[in-house]
Amino acid sequence: MKNHTGQLPLVTSISVAAEPPSLQDNTADIDRLRMAVAKELATGLQNRPLVVPLAVMAELGRRLRAAEFVGYAIVNVLPHELQLVDFSAKKPAVIPCMALDLGTTHLEATLVDCTTGTTIAHAHTPNEQMRFGADILSRIHHAGRNDGDGLLELQQAVTASINHLVVELAEEGRTKPEFIRALCVSGNTTMVHLLLGLSPYHICREPYTPLVGWPDPFFAAEIGIRLSRSAPVWVLPNIGSYFGGDLISGILASGLDKMEKTSMLIDVGTNAEVVLGNKDWLIACAGAAGPALEGGVARMGMRAGPGAIEHVRLDRHSWQLEITTIDDQPAVGICGSGLIELVAQLFLAGIIDIRGKLCRDVHSGSPARREFIRSRLVTAEEGFRFVVVPGDQSGQGEPVVLAQVDLDAMMRSKAAMYAILTTLTSQVGVEFSDLDHIYVAGAFGKHIDPVAAITLGMLPDLPLSTYVPLGNSSLHGAELLLVSEEARLRSLEIGRKITYIELNVNQEFMLRFSASRFIPHTDPGLFPSVSIYQRDKSAQKG
Amino acid sequence: MKNHTGQLPLVTSISVAAEPPSLQDNTADIDRLRMAVAKELATGLQNRPLVVPLAVMAELGRRLRAAEFVGYAIVNVLPHELQLVDFSAKKPAVIPCMALDLGTTHLEATLVDCTTGTTIAHAHTPNEQMRFGADILSRIHHAGRNDGDGLLELQQAVTASINHLVVELAEEGRTKPEFIRALCVSGNTTMVHLLLGLSPYHICREPYTPLVGWPDPFFAAEIGIRLSRSAPVWVLPNIGSYFGGDLISGILASGLDKMEKTSMLIDVGTNAEVVLGNKDWLIACAGAAGPALEGGVARMGMRAGPGAIEHVRLDRHSWQLEITTIDDQPAVGICGSGLIELVAQLFLAGIIDIRGKLCRDVHSGSPARREFIRSRLVTAEEGFRFVVVPGDQSGQGEPVVLAQVDLDAMMRSKAAMYAILTTLTSQVGVEFSDLDHIYVAGAFGKHIDPVAAITLGMLPDLPLSTYVPLGNSSLHGAELLLVSEEARLRSLEIGRKITYIELNVNQEFMLRFSASRFIPHTDPGLFPSVSIYQRDKSAQKG
Repeated sequence: MKNHTGQLPLVTSISVAAEPPSLQDNTADIDRLRMAVAKELATGLQNRPLVVPLAVMAELGRRLRAAEFVGYAIVNVLPHELQLVDFSAKKPAVIPCMALDLGTTHLEATLVDCTTGTTIAHAHTPNEQMRFGADILSRIHHAGRNDGDGLLELQQAVTASINHLVVELAEEGRTKPEFIRALCVSGNTTMVHLLLGLSPYHICREPYTPLVGWPDPFFAAEIGIRLSRSAPVWVLPNIGSYFGGDLISGILASGLDKMEKTSMLIDVGTNAEVVLGNKDWLIACAGAAGPALEGGVARMGMRAGPGAIEHVRLDRHSWQLEITTIDDQPAVGICGSGLIELVAQLFLAGIIDIRGKLCRDVHSGSPARREFIRSRLVTAEEGFRFVVVPGDQSGQGEPVVLAQVDLDAMMRSKAAMYAILTTLTSQVGVEFSDLDHIYVAGAFGKHIDPVAAITLGMLPDLPLSTYVPLGNSSLHGAELLLVSEEARLRSLEIGRKITYIELNVNQEFMLRFSASRFIPHTDPGLFPSVSIYQRDKSAQKG
Repeated sequence: MKNHTGQLPLVTSISVAAEPPSLQDNTADIDRLRMAVAKELATGLQNRPLVVPLAVMAELGRRLRAAEFVGYAIVNVLPHELQLVDFSAKKPAVIPCMALDLGTTHLEATLVDCTTGTTIAHAHTPNEQMRFGADILSRIHHAGRNDGDGLLELQQAVTASINHLVVELAEEGRTKPEFIRALCVSGNTTMVHLLLGLSPYHICREPYTPLVGWPDPFFAAEIGIRLSRSAPVWVLPNIGSYFGGDLISGILASGLDKMEKTSMLIDVGTNAEVVLGNKDWLIACAGAAGPALEGGVARMGMRAGPGAIEHVRLDRHSWQLEITTIDDQPAVGICGSGLIELVAQLFLAGIIDIRGKLCRDVHSGSPARREFIRSRLVTAEEGFRFVVVPGDQSGQGEPVVLAQVDLDAMMRSKAAMYAILTTLTSQVGVEFSDLDHIYVAGAFGKHIDPVAAITLGMLPDLPLSTYVPLGNSSLHGAELLLVSEEARLRSLEIGRKITYIELNVNQEFMLRFSASRFIPHTDPGLFPSVSIYQRDKSAQKG
């Protein structure tokens, strides 16, 4: 029953040899199978009811007869029941199941073999809901339109995206959609509501209450997803309107809930979501720190995709600006990590001051510096803007620029992030220096240069080894749940154990936010290492 | 949670007052309700998982908000889980649920209020499957046609009949189909398979194995029955191809499984099914004793319906034959109870001999007797036939007759019945005289005259007070299950506890069958009371 990793997967096969029916024992086929399977159950599962869903019964009966009552039963392992769903004479070589990171803008999925835990296919696609609005609020608004039709449209859009992924995964994994036996979904609270066809109306209205946090497993067909007819859908629980299953996934993937020492998890998506804790306690909060970092606010901001500027380095001798774009495509915009590096570099070069304002000092520094500022820092209607890539070198013929208004948004985001982190730690009397690790989830964690983030005062000034990128932990958590009952039970336990702090009503947060609106901070003593990368005084002096 | 009868019904309402959401506690609506309901659960239910089916979640959420979190939760009480399915501000005055006797030829149903156990409507209808064949074998044959299309046709036919009943019950009960909250079905094994869309192929083929005996509850919508979307369907288990849930119903309704003293239950439908036992043990068997008694064999035989001769009395002084028909309509045929009385009367009058043959002795007895025999006993191609009702007095212009061939079938049926009863009792060393009661189910039990059945040697010669008619115990058992968890658990327990004897492979049965093919028996000592009603020797002597 356990897989190659010693775990109990969401779908497993059990070797069964039932006696065929006879005049001496004409117990019905399905009951016969049920009894034979019950005998083979591991000790911990013996008290769990073993049910046969009506939808699979006819086919199960046919396959049982075809195999002459000897072979492998396929069982869905749910918390409160085992579902006996299929039978085959041969041991299934793989049991393909789907893990899904249900993002607001993008969906990413893998096909995992539950018997080995191996990933056998990988795919991603934009969320078709984008045509009804780019962000969560516009989706919630659309869901309320036309007496439920809007909600239905959104549900159909996202299931279309998922079905698209299903076909792609099946192809790459050399299987068929109807052989994919389970789906595990990790997403934010609103995305999960829309997938389930549930109104997100109250999510964005005080007191910010989701309709459901802990949906029970259901069948994929119930929401129009075309997998095996017995495929259960396991949705990671959310514990609040702004704290979704994607973060529970992150906790699982990082193992925060099992650690002796206190660590922290940061997930920056549309919101910044932060969890602090260890095996004994978990505390979490979320806040609107993300938009500028995810490309939602900066005019040239964009998601990490081809042509997005992801790294920026300014050589303060030659005054050459080196940029790296994703896939080495001509630059079309700038993503979160690129923006942070750019601002950090410009701050160190004295082109952005400690208040986060572009300053056009063309009279100090070397001639190269003066020329650099003269050519790059131009005046526009709304103030200065910094030309990152001139129009003749960009991917779209238009220059890629950083305007003051974008910089202001970025400053608010970085201040919010630091304020969230300090508010959370102060709630439980933990110092940053007590933290064993800070796990950084998502594209943000993967691409960000902690040095740049520390320079700006966005992340605390800790040894760089403290920072651990997690990658797509939302997806990784969903994968873990597919292959391990221990992870599934942990996901439920985490939801019960976590304490959530609502920042919208936190006065302390607002004070900390104001104090963080300088680079690196109103109290530079909090960032001793920033002196190492400190501003190029000589250049300024020139 | 318990209803007015102190029982826990299949669907119940639970008074709940949840705190409305606040910034201090923004637990999701559904989880909030779930926790509030969990607090109100009776001790015995607290460990049962409380789930919310996805199909009802959106509406449940709307109704919970409308009621401002205070009111009554509607809960389906299943053996392994509680399903939280609805919410209303006001306590539901009634919780209408449907009980169904799923017969091969006819369906009978009631609407029961689960809160009081009161019957609020009653309806019956022919089984639309009749157009695909009158008996079980022809249905099984049809189910195998056209690669599953036949099975689908049969399923759609019976669900159409059930939906017809639903509308009728709703109208009579002054409610709507969508407010009917559960369905409990009692039927024979084949009928249940066809309702569930499961192949009955192996039911009639050695070793006579059903596909399923214990289907788990499912939702009515899954088989196309239009009740509340959260209505569970509870199907009474069958314990063999020839021992269906209708008989489990009969055991429940009679209380056989709770009795200190040993009793017997006889159900004559298409088959004769017999159960013997008490609170400690139950033993059962079934055999083809029914057709002649149910109108399937006798040429003029018919189901107990308008115009069926149900009682026959022959005055052996005036030699007048008095008949009673159902609804006092002109006679069109003869039903099982009428046939038994007719044969008993003719036997007592010396017109049928102990071998069960019509004998045309026109030379003995009174002139009235001679005239009676002359006019009533006519010669036909295949032998004698007895004219029960002349053509000019019948409902169809044709005489209603009893032919020798019908009589032969009747003799086989009565012999089979007595052989079944003696085989079963001898298996456990019980004497007929040890029996406290013999419960006789169905139309057969309702209409049959035990005196006539004893005269023929069909039922054992016991005091008449031993025989208790049960009426439609299949329907009554289904009603019990709706209103009482104790009955639901008993229905499962009965299935586990019962020992089933396969008569098709029983040599002893064949010997007993041969010995029973006399009136009353080859051993008349077994029927001492038949002397009281003994044959009119004087008449024979003339």
